Amino acid sequence: MLIVQKYGGSSVANTERIKIVAQRIVDTYNLNNSLVVILSAQGDTTNELLAKIAEITSTPSKRETDMLLATGEQQSVALMSMAIQSLGYPAVSLNAQQVGISSSVTYSNARIEKIENARILKELAAKNIVIIAGFQGINSHGDITTLGRGGSDTSAVALAASLNANLCEIYTDVDGIYTADPRIVADAQKLTEISYDEMLEMASLGANVLHNRSVELAKKNNIKLVVRSSFVLDKGTVVKEKRKMESVYVSGVVSDSNVATISIIGIKDTPGMAYNIFSALALKKISIDIILQSVGRAGTKDIVFTLAESDLADALEVLGTQDDIITCEEITVNKDVAKLSVIGAGIEANPEVAPIMFGALFHANINISMIATSEIKLSVIIDQKDAKHGVQVVHDALIGENNQL
Amino acid sequence: MLIVQKYGGSSVANTERIKIVAQRIVDTYNLNNSLVVILSAQGDTTNELLAKIAEITSTPSKRETDMLLATGEQQSVALMSMAIQSLGYPAVSLNAQQVGISSSVTYSNARIEKIENARILKELAAKNIVIIAGFQGINSHGDITTLGRGGSDTSAVALAASLNANLCEIYTDVDGIYTADPRIVADAQKLTEISYDEMLEMASLGANVLHNRSVELAKKNNIKLVVRSSFVLDKGTVVKEKRKMESVYVSGVVSDSNVATISIIGIKDTPGMAYNIFSALALKKISIDIILQSVGRAGTKDIVFTLAESDLADALEVLGTQDDIITCEEITVNKDVAKLSVIGAGIEANPEVAPIMFGALFHANINISMIATSEIKLSVIIDQKDAKHGVQVVHDALIGENNQL
Repeated sequence: MLIVQKYGGSSVANTERIKIVAQRIVDTYNLNNSLVVILSAQGDTTNELLAKIAEITSTPSKRETDMLLATGEQQSVALMSMAIQSLGYPAVSLNAQQVGISSSVTYSNARIEKIENARILKELAAKNIVIIAGFQGINSHGDITTLGRGGSDTSAVALAASLNANLCEIYTDVDGIYTADPRIVADAQKLTEISYDEMLEMASLGANVLHNRSVELAKKNNIKLVVRSSFVLDKGTVVKEKRKMESVYVSGVVSDSNVATISIIGIKDTPGMAYNIFSALALKKISIDIILQSVGRAGTKDIVFTLAESDLADALEVLGTQDDIITCEEITVNKDVAKLSVIGAGIEANPEVAPIMFGALFHANINISMIATSEIKLSVIIDQKDAKHGVQVVHDALIGENNQL
Repeated sequence: MLIVQKYGGSSVANTERIKIVAQRIVDTYNLNNSLVVILSAQGDTTNELLAKIAEITSTPSKRETDMLLATGEQQSVALMSMAIQSLGYPAVSLNAQQVGISSSVTYSNARIEKIENARILKELAAKNIVIIAGFQGINSHGDITTLGRGGSDTSAVALAASLNANLCEIYTDVDGIYTADPRIVADAQKLTEISYDEMLEMASLGANVLHNRSVELAKKNNIKLVVRSSFVLDKGTVVKEKRKMESVYVSGVVSDSNVATISIIGIKDTPGMAYNIFSALALKKISIDIILQSVGRAGTKDIVFTLAESDLADALEVLGTQDDIITCEEITVNKDVAKLSVIGAGIEANPEVAPIMFGALFHANINISMIATSEIKLSVIIDQKDAKHGVQVVHDALIGENNQL
């Protein structure tokens, strides 16, 4: 079987961990598998390199930053290859150039465009364990690019797709995907399986285990992903197209505090105002999440919407320069909000999920200011101070031992 | 003018030094020069990486070692490029792959075979200062190689030759080539000029400023080399084909303690014994320096020769396994010796050099056990304990203020 494994920075943070991971790789190889392993940079390497940049300049060139950062992964793969060899097994490390991982031109946040399989297949044919530097590509100028946050996950899934691998295992410092953040909800359950779509919602709503781009790529290429711990021998969570029928309706409860609301009060009630507002924001690539429009005082209406708090400054600047087309009385902002979401492939088919969720929040005295739904998601906006408690009570009501479903 | 500059590891050891060097590079650029800069890894980076290897294995693969070590230079060039950009000047960093520096297959000690100029010329045409990772090449497998000790000097000279540069400046932590090690001889003089051949003898006899391969390459391609300090504004020493006529006869006095003598006593006096001994050593790539053969007791002869102390163990093993062809009474070894050498293009033409040297050693009560001469060199073997004092008295007699020449 051809398996692609990815180990994150904490899994290779020091020599001891490299040796543990090397043994794990060898164990998989010994089960008669062909093995391609993608690594991130060791632990704090990336941050140390960024600190060196900060000593030199506050406005570093992205090209040179990528040139520098890519060395972290190259160091990891060389060290891992040596560790595997020292156990008596054949290994070879390759960087993006040596593999032929072509990316878009954009530095710091490039997309993988094409992967050459020839060198990898040659090394696999020679029975080598192939260790590949994640997070990096080579653009059409022949320069090194990096793939942005979560880039090594994306490298792993892209390689699995290119090589038509049977399985892509993402090894990390958690042992799977949970129904809620175990630091918040003590009885959060580890999921055996989750669908790509549910995982995408989980990731975009605040669960940081897998980066969205890697899940999108896995879904597009139908790559079976497994999220597992590097240090605990455990089955982890399988991410695939469809979950088994008998699995739970609700796969997780997550909260996201990187949310703000903007309220535009007393908009003149003429056609095209909403269009003006949201097209201006879209032009600046600002994503809007939930939108609520209500009738305001005589002849006006109010629009409230949510967006990522990190986009707030940009959004206010856009709205401030649209005075000529957006006529309103007042714009107010609330940063002290959180989005609490329930995710599950069974939500649309099970109308009882929403009332149970709302009831749990009501009984906990948590006020809901906005609601949004999709086929597999139900989100509410609440006060940020209530986020953790909200996750707990909703998890209790929908997933916990005494759930009401 | 097209100038190639090389800065060593100590010159880029920390952010402060990188900024000083960046300013120096910009100053040269501002004099309307095209500039290609070769860098070594920062200060202790290479040693830190070797320490990481040592934690993993005592028998690292040379391929993986090169893959790891090459990241050091890639980090230097990216940081330097940022430092130059932060001064407001255009720069671009390139690794060996991006330039196209082809090397022999041998890991850890590869030779540069070919350099592609296209990318460099394109960047120079765009008025960029081009910063290139030294010490590395890419072999025919597409793998990273390193060039061995002094490799970045070799990278610099090879690039200067390939680009037909007007000048190759080697910036280091000393400000030039001296007539003797200034730590030993207080009144050692900095040379304005030295010939390639003299520099080759200086380097191979213990002056560690320039690596021999880089000097050989400069001589072969007639590249004018300048050795200068990274931190002091000073003209340094020019290394070129011929020195000016008026320059001193003797360009330097050096000692080398990595020397041992092997005495093979009581060799049966039949033809072919010397051939047997030295061909066996040559087969194992052991270089012999000075050879002295004398008549021994009845029907025998003695052979004494010098070699690098680091080759001693290998040499003794070779001799020990040649019992069938080397018939002798005894083999003795002396590691407590040093080679003291006088180098100068004027030595052959000036017969007084040798007697002045021998006289100085005699008056200092330093015993000479072996002597060897070449056109530009005069070497003697003395006790190691006398090496520093010997350098001093010979320097006084041949070069110092009251020299006898």
